[in-house]
Amino acid sequence: MRQRCDWLIRADFVVTQDTERRIHEPGAVAVRGDLIVAVGRRDEIDDHWEGASVIDLGESVILPGLINGHTHIPMSLLRGYSDDKALMDWLHLDIFPIEAKLTAEVIETAAAFSCAEMLRTGTTAFYDMYMMEPSVFRATDRMGLRAVIGESVSHFFPSLVARDAEEVFEQIREHAEVLKGHPRIRQAVVPHAIYTTNPEFLHQCRALADELGCLFGMHLSETRGETENCLKRTGMRPVAYCRDLGLLRPDATFFHAVDVDDADMDMLAEGRCAVVHNPASNMKLASGAAPLGSLLSRGIAVGLGTDGPASNNAQNMVREMYVAALLQKISKLDPTALSAQQALDLATRGGAGALHDPSIGVLAPGMKADLCAFSVAEPNMQPVHCVISNVVYAATGMENRLTMVDGRILYRDGLFHGIDYESLRKAMSDLRHWVARKTR
Amino acid sequence: MRQRCDWLIRADFVVTQDTERRIHEPGAVAVRGDLIVAVGRRDEIDDHWEGASVIDLGESVILPGLINGHTHIPMSLLRGYSDDKALMDWLHLDIFPIEAKLTAEVIETAAAFSCAEMLRTGTTAFYDMYMMEPSVFRATDRMGLRAVIGESVSHFFPSLVARDAEEVFEQIREHAEVLKGHPRIRQAVVPHAIYTTNPEFLHQCRALADELGCLFGMHLSETRGETENCLKRTGMRPVAYCRDLGLLRPDATFFHAVDVDDADMDMLAEGRCAVVHNPASNMKLASGAAPLGSLLSRGIAVGLGTDGPASNNAQNMVREMYVAALLQKISKLDPTALSAQQALDLATRGGAGALHDPSIGVLAPGMKADLCAFSVAEPNMQPVHCVISNVVYAATGMENRLTMVDGRILYRDGLFHGIDYESLRKAMSDLRHWVARKTR
Repeated sequence: MRQRCDWLIRADFVVTQDTERRIHEPGAVAVRGDLIVAVGRRDEIDDHWEGASVIDLGESVILPGLINGHTHIPMSLLRGYSDDKALMDWLHLDIFPIEAKLTAEVIETAAAFSCAEMLRTGTTAFYDMYMMEPSVFRATDRMGLRAVIGESVSHFFPSLVARDAEEVFEQIREHAEVLKGHPRIRQAVVPHAIYTTNPEFLHQCRALADELGCLFGMHLSETRGETENCLKRTGMRPVAYCRDLGLLRPDATFFHAVDVDDADMDMLAEGRCAVVHNPASNMKLASGAAPLGSLLSRGIAVGLGTDGPASNNAQNMVREMYVAALLQKISKLDPTALSAQQALDLATRGGAGALHDPSIGVLAPGMKADLCAFSVAEPNMQPVHCVISNVVYAATGMENRLTMVDGRILYRDGLFHGIDYESLRKAMSDLRHWVARKTR
Repeated sequence: MRQRCDWLIRADFVVTQDTERRIHEPGAVAVRGDLIVAVGRRDEIDDHWEGASVIDLGESVILPGLINGHTHIPMSLLRGYSDDKALMDWLHLDIFPIEAKLTAEVIETAAAFSCAEMLRTGTTAFYDMYMMEPSVFRATDRMGLRAVIGESVSHFFPSLVARDAEEVFEQIREHAEVLKGHPRIRQAVVPHAIYTTNPEFLHQCRALADELGCLFGMHLSETRGETENCLKRTGMRPVAYCRDLGLLRPDATFFHAVDVDDADMDMLAEGRCAVVHNPASNMKLASGAAPLGSLLSRGIAVGLGTDGPASNNAQNMVREMYVAALLQKISKLDPTALSAQQALDLATRGGAGALHDPSIGVLAPGMKADLCAFSVAEPNMQPVHCVISNVVYAATGMENRLTMVDGRILYRDGLFHGIDYESLRKAMSDLRHWVARKTR
């Protein structure tokens, strides 16, 4: 007597990313409600499970949904708007002036479009920080992805959204009420960075996270310049400054961690903080190479992120895995640095750590039914000597055929489910002219 | 009265890559026979040209076909077969043993599959060097791409194909007869590298190129180790050694040029040689970063290549442009290094220089009708503030909708024309088992 499930999904390969990194060939995944109920060899799953719906993907590989550990999704608005510039010119001459004119509607459209891009390329969850996160929430809720979202706050007021700190903190409290009990979207308090805040403001942010029982995130140690600036202002390197302020806690995620030394990494490990590596952004902005081997060897949870589409310029975690592996190899001048398996770990198990969500990142019974499936029939994906190598080193992300979040199919074989992609694309295309008008 | 042409191809954007880097928005290209006869604004082209067939690509960008300046296309056989290893372990423990068992049939299948991958992602021409190039020729001829191909020769005999140098040179002479007058495929004499040849053998190779009137190519200055080895053996750095041997000539293309100093680059410029940059391979094998700015500022023709699929692991020139830009920025710690436009130049105009073919790399009347066209309707391609930025920094290569070579459509919207892709894919998939049997 076979047990019933909602979906039975079969493919030539199932990469579980479990503790033993088992791969079932061929394999299958059984899904009931929002959960995976079984994963295994295809014949075993077929013997024990009967799916109300069956998807036979054939020459494909099913993977845990990829997790984008750090991004600013509304910045798809500014994809290709300014490239190849020095960081301060980029920010002050191009990015900040247009950001000062953003509206909630524009942000919601751009956020929804980024969600479509992530679904298209197999990403099921992300950690976002930007302005007007209620708009990001509405887009994400509608598009169906899993997320941690946080209003990026700095001590400069008036900001786009508030006259002073009290007002923005009150907005975050109100948004916490909206998010309460949401099955997929959680909140974080995310001060922007050390160099855009002061100790009192950071204390207030940390206190607010405690009050709301939510996560805490911040850009940290992105560049050598940030370190030098912090040393000058406080006499401490950025990580030590955060430790002194009590910010190194297990619910914290720090984005970048490029310019960190051994003592910094020891403190991050001791605080059981997570970090997120953003290799393409760090290369494009010439920030440097995070010492991944040293972070991982300390047992620190390391996720992988695209950073915003203005500095990447995609939201494609497959490309990010590839770039992550290449950057470690060239920066250490060691071709054995960051293997394909380790790169995939960053985007799955590491991402779960970065989002502080133990229910994702692995295909196993009891885990959330978040998955993607890449065709291996494309001319860049054969032969399959090692399916993980092909996903990390040969795939583009566009091989993805199926994206499921929380047991719901959101993308399949060219079609986005439950959204009108053509209208969304048209709205996004029109934002080119909106930007042109605003910057005239 | 409008003039007749075979194809009239329209799109929202036409990136010409001409001297002024004109972009027509919207634009069109008229093709007659194997040549482009007109390129311009859509209304102008429509006024003056009548196409026997019209392709309206709408939300797409037409570009010159991308040019892969250095690869070993049969190595798709070994995609994902061995990764994340030190160079000498990779070569001696994994790559060389299986290469010693290759057959002409296996090479032809793997080469054809790489051609499919290149067509899929917008590449129309390539410069190949591997073993059994008559098999590479047959595959390329059948698949319809443009190419320069050369048997990679070293002074170690017996080799896979010959007992001694005389025998392999005689094979190359015989192959020259086959290639004579071919409209798309030309021959090169390509000694493998300094460290696998001696001065006498290199002299013989150069003399053979002169005898046949064909091109000359070689791996050069790929790693610091190669430089040190050459200094020890000859007392000269690799480029100086080549100059002394009379190899720095305008028909020569040198692959990699990573470990080159100012004097080396001056010599390459003086010899009017072309070089090909292979950023992903140089990163994956931890070879280093070629000094592109210094090469380009000397007026050296610099192409872009994927290198073989065993060290990339794709044959995707869009990804290669992205990696090229990122590598220059991080290696120079300068976000202004290698702009999107410069990266596209490498893959088009620079590629024409690397293949010594002035009839490709630009969309203009009189040039060969080699082009590709990327959709900008995908969720990673909007908005279009700068279409070149979106192609270089946001595209994956899989957005390509149309690949034309020599006026023939070879790929369009998911279908390869004139080849049975399913049979080819099945043959390639089966080679996984062939490799497993041979390495048991």
